Amino acid sequence: MLGADGVALDTHASPAGIMHLPAGGFEQAFEETCGAWLDAHPQLPVLAAGMVGSAQGWAEAPYVEAPADADALVAGIVAIETARGATVRIVPGVLERGVLPNVMRGEETQIVGALSSDASLNAEGGVLIGLPGTHAKWAFVQAGRIERFYTFMTGELFGALRDYTILGRTMQQGAAADAAAFERGVDTARDAGHPGVLATIFSTRTLGLTGQLTPAQQPDYLSGLLIGHELRGLTEVLARDQSSLAGRTLRLIGNDTLCDRYRAALARFGCLDAATVANATEQGLCRIAVQAGLVPAPVRAA
Amino acid sequence: MLGADGVALDTHASPAGIMHLPAGGFEQAFEETCGAWLDAHPQLPVLAAGMVGSAQGWAEAPYVEAPADADALVAGIVAIETARGATVRIVPGVLERGVLPNVMRGEETQIVGALSSDASLNAEGGVLIGLPGTHAKWAFVQAGRIERFYTFMTGELFGALRDYTILGRTMQQGAAADAAAFERGVDTARDAGHPGVLATIFSTRTLGLTGQLTPAQQPDYLSGLLIGHELRGLTEVLARDQSSLAGRTLRLIGNDTLCDRYRAALARFGCLDAATVANATEQGLCRIAVQAGLVPAPVRAA
Repeated sequence: MLGADGVALDTHASPAGIMHLPAGGFEQAFEETCGAWLDAHPQLPVLAAGMVGSAQGWAEAPYVEAPADADALVAGIVAIETARGATVRIVPGVLERGVLPNVMRGEETQIVGALSSDASLNAEGGVLIGLPGTHAKWAFVQAGRIERFYTFMTGELFGALRDYTILGRTMQQGAAADAAAFERGVDTARDAGHPGVLATIFSTRTLGLTGQLTPAQQPDYLSGLLIGHELRGLTEVLARDQSSLAGRTLRLIGNDTLCDRYRAALARFGCLDAATVANATEQGLCRIAVQAGLVPAPVRAA
Repeated sequence: MLGADGVALDTHASPAGIMHLPAGGFEQAFEETCGAWLDAHPQLPVLAAGMVGSAQGWAEAPYVEAPADADALVAGIVAIETARGATVRIVPGVLERGVLPNVMRGEETQIVGALSSDASLNAEGGVLIGLPGTHAKWAFVQAGRIERFYTFMTGELFGALRDYTILGRTMQQGAAADAAAFERGVDTARDAGHPGVLATIFSTRTLGLTGQLTPAQQPDYLSGLLIGHELRGLTEVLARDQSSLAGRTLRLIGNDTLCDRYRAALARFGCLDAATVANATEQGLCRIAVQAGLVPAPVRAA
């Protein structure tokens, strides 16, 4: 719940998600999360973003096509009436068509939040925004528009490799983070001449067999390898525009621990200016709510 | 069991493996597989290859270091005495040291078999041999020696992505093979300018979401993508020697269906001469047994 200044007054986290709904479905999950707020403030506008608007969600908010700005997102909002008579508005995701189509749901709202929180990100030339996670996104944003973006299945692949392949068998999980092992993985992925991620990941095992990585170091090494291959893929995309990660200014959105990992990896690629944007989700929801006329512009303390 | 001509007289397949041993362990698995042969022919030499010689195997046959030829493999054979008094000899695997160490166990024997079955493979300039599978190997072989090799976790990764990630959720499994979907995946991986396999695999889902791949086509598309990325990785390795897959003669060792898939993918890279070597394991064991003095050279029908 956000105050008139756009800052969160209260937050409720719920383990429910579209794959893990309570018996009463979306209505029940909504009541459990927001019911007390609406009891206290019946006129509070409700804005939602993310998988709740997918085809498997509460109501489908069809994708808006890239390039997309906050106006396009507002125009794509889908409203539903809940059992208690509240109106829930759902921000649509963004679809980029092409040989490799891409989709996002939720990240578009975070990107709008980042842009509204830092005017320098709207400067000429645009900015690259990374959103690490299960499905990491990298978005090229210019003049307030999400121009194009990529999805890397880095987080989900790490989990699948660790839990369901031979690589997990020699790993010791739950050990303290090992920054050197992580950077070794990043550097291996970054350096040219290797046969790609399908081959380099096997070194997690063979460096163990040959006594060069302890079981406790193998998870961080594999994490570094995968994030390194993600950044190397991004480098190939940037090279098409005669650009690179080295010396670039970019922004990260996500949980602090993961953003720290990405910052360490980016440094190995020569990118030293990659600050994390705080509260991007709240700021994005607030900005979209203002733009949709649901709430007045926030009153910020001078 | 091989005859004096090196051809299999009888074969017993067993579901046992180092991860799935019967209650009596290796001794019991050996008795179930070979006991009847030894009852009938007590003097039959026994030669084994593969994971049976790993640190978790029946007895460890320490890796021989690359470059390695059949003589080096023979010198590394480890012999154990079984409960029934038979001697089981285990062919060692091969280790290649380096920044990304590589190991093989079993494939070295198949490669020796391929070389002994086709004299043209020992020609000046060497040959590239691919062994598709859970952990696909690609070996550069010259003058009878395994010079260097790469491991791609293509098969195991395909299974993990299909069974344990979001990609499996939109797939229809068990459908008839779709060659066009497979080739589309290969071509996508082959074509430059894409951000790498961590990103392209997500298109399995998004091409489905945008109506460009049916659920039944998605497994073959993903398989084509992964094999295509493997061949693209191999292409990068070859490029270091100013070489490529296009126009190259190479050999495949493995099950026929999988080798057919690889042959179709190799054709998209311009490689049209990639015959499968038949009976490579039997021929390799026979050649090593002869070289070790365990059996006389095979008498081949004129």
